[in-house]
Amino acid sequence: MNISYYNGKFLPHDEISISPDDRGFLFADGVYEVVRWYEGFFFDMNSHVERLKRSLRELSIKWDDAGNFPSIAEQLLRVNKLMNRPSLIYIQVTRGSATRSHSFPIPDISPTVYANAWEFTPDISSKKNGVNVMLKEDIRWSRCDIKSVALLPNTMSFQEAYSKGLKECIFVRNGLITEGTHSNIFFIINGTLFTHPESNNILSGVTRKNILRIAGENGISIREEAVHEDNIRSVHEAFISSTTSEVTPVLSLGGDIVGDGTPGPVTRLIQAGFDTQITALKG
Amino acid sequence: MNISYYNGKFLPHDEISISPDDRGFLFADGVYEVVRWYEGFFFDMNSHVERLKRSLRELSIKWDDAGNFPSIAEQLLRVNKLMNRPSLIYIQVTRGSATRSHSFPIPDISPTVYANAWEFTPDISSKKNGVNVMLKEDIRWSRCDIKSVALLPNTMSFQEAYSKGLKECIFVRNGLITEGTHSNIFFIINGTLFTHPESNNILSGVTRKNILRIAGENGISIREEAVHEDNIRSVHEAFISSTTSEVTPVLSLGGDIVGDGTPGPVTRLIQAGFDTQITALKG
Repeated sequence: MNISYYNGKFLPHDEISISPDDRGFLFADGVYEVVRWYEGFFFDMNSHVERLKRSLRELSIKWDDAGNFPSIAEQLLRVNKLMNRPSLIYIQVTRGSATRSHSFPIPDISPTVYANAWEFTPDISSKKNGVNVMLKEDIRWSRCDIKSVALLPNTMSFQEAYSKGLKECIFVRNGLITEGTHSNIFFIINGTLFTHPESNNILSGVTRKNILRIAGENGISIREEAVHEDNIRSVHEAFISSTTSEVTPVLSLGGDIVGDGTPGPVTRLIQAGFDTQITALKG
Repeated sequence: MNISYYNGKFLPHDEISISPDDRGFLFADGVYEVVRWYEGFFFDMNSHVERLKRSLRELSIKWDDAGNFPSIAEQLLRVNKLMNRPSLIYIQVTRGSATRSHSFPIPDISPTVYANAWEFTPDISSKKNGVNVMLKEDIRWSRCDIKSVALLPNTMSFQEAYSKGLKECIFVRNGLITEGTHSNIFFIINGTLFTHPESNNILSGVTRKNILRIAGENGISIREEAVHEDNIRSVHEAFISSTTSEVTPVLSLGGDIVGDGTPGPVTRLIQAGFDTQITALKG
């Protein structure tokens, strides 16, 4: 039976009860993180904790114990016997429960903190062979830098891709390619790595940040600059990144074949850099 | 003790338990309605039911019993002894509970249906004396026509207004005034009533629709056309509308005084038309 975390306690998942007055349920007034456990270590947990703290700060949600997330995550792995399994740990923090009102409750209420962990099957085939993705006008709000649970536009858009047999929906805002519903996207044009700069229109991905570092270490030139949708045909390679998909090649984008339609050499170089680093961390 | 509705049952509010796997909690994957009870009748319940059905349809959430909402609402009033009280009835329908995944669950799961009712104190003073509101760039998504629970941008923006002692935050998109965080907005310029046309950038308010009808019946000329923020100084009157605020005059907008800073004659005419109609319905 799965054990989850809820407001300081580790409980059987089925016994966790969210109030219908929870502002996460009523208003999507909360934030979350998903961290990967590589059978021995979390991938860049520090960056996840820092991002969680930033999201909370941006919404003025006061959870003073955000620094305890690594310890909560480790206990979840332990009690669920996942220490030797590839796993994901999810944490969600909402403003808490209060009588429904758009304004924030006064005085401050206790946040709702929920976390769980589960065994995860990496999509090795997509990582090896690549995926096809769709393109769509970005219907999301203008604070995509906050990792909030107001994910309805993401689920609607991902579902659209999923129902067409595609692996991700990539957003375009004012002609510029921003990111996917739950991934960042990178392009290689004439050997240079392009990705949308950090801004209010993308989530600053933990994997994204690590990829930029790995690319730099491998002497790849980098431009944090958005690619215009009109230039997709001149792109040589593309890949998406996320905690779960790591570095996954993109074969076609909105029906346009990327490069020669196979994972390209720069993508493979970055994948190898990523995998080498994981292997090194496994020790 | 408050009795609420949850998936077919009327239960003490405190006994209602939302699963942490509810897609309303995880993804804001749900819709809602708020209806006003005028001590004897619901205000335009048909329009609320139709809008609820439309929101559900837009998100492909299957709740076949949406037509039962009036009966659920009436039972909530009855069991909570609210029949002779000004009350609000809230209903929220989410896609239901499933293992977290951006794509919609297959096969279809049962939606979560939650409703409650409470006594409501109308803000008579604001209706009589008017309110001051702020203006802000519209940070919301581009499907504001769906009454979804992805309300984080609305709560953030309303809180900004509230913390400044203002009664609403009005959004501006590409220079055009759209609506408030939980109200529509109307302007009177040279005797003509202006309001943003129905589109994906506003919610089609039930009160908004009734105001347009009342204005027509009173021979007021109507233009469903957005007002540009640059033209605020040439506006003679303004008011906001919603299920709870009915017709509430706006005295100033983003620091600019509207007209002479008092509720104007066309606003008063529409307020009177609205009140007359309520009185007539009370019979």
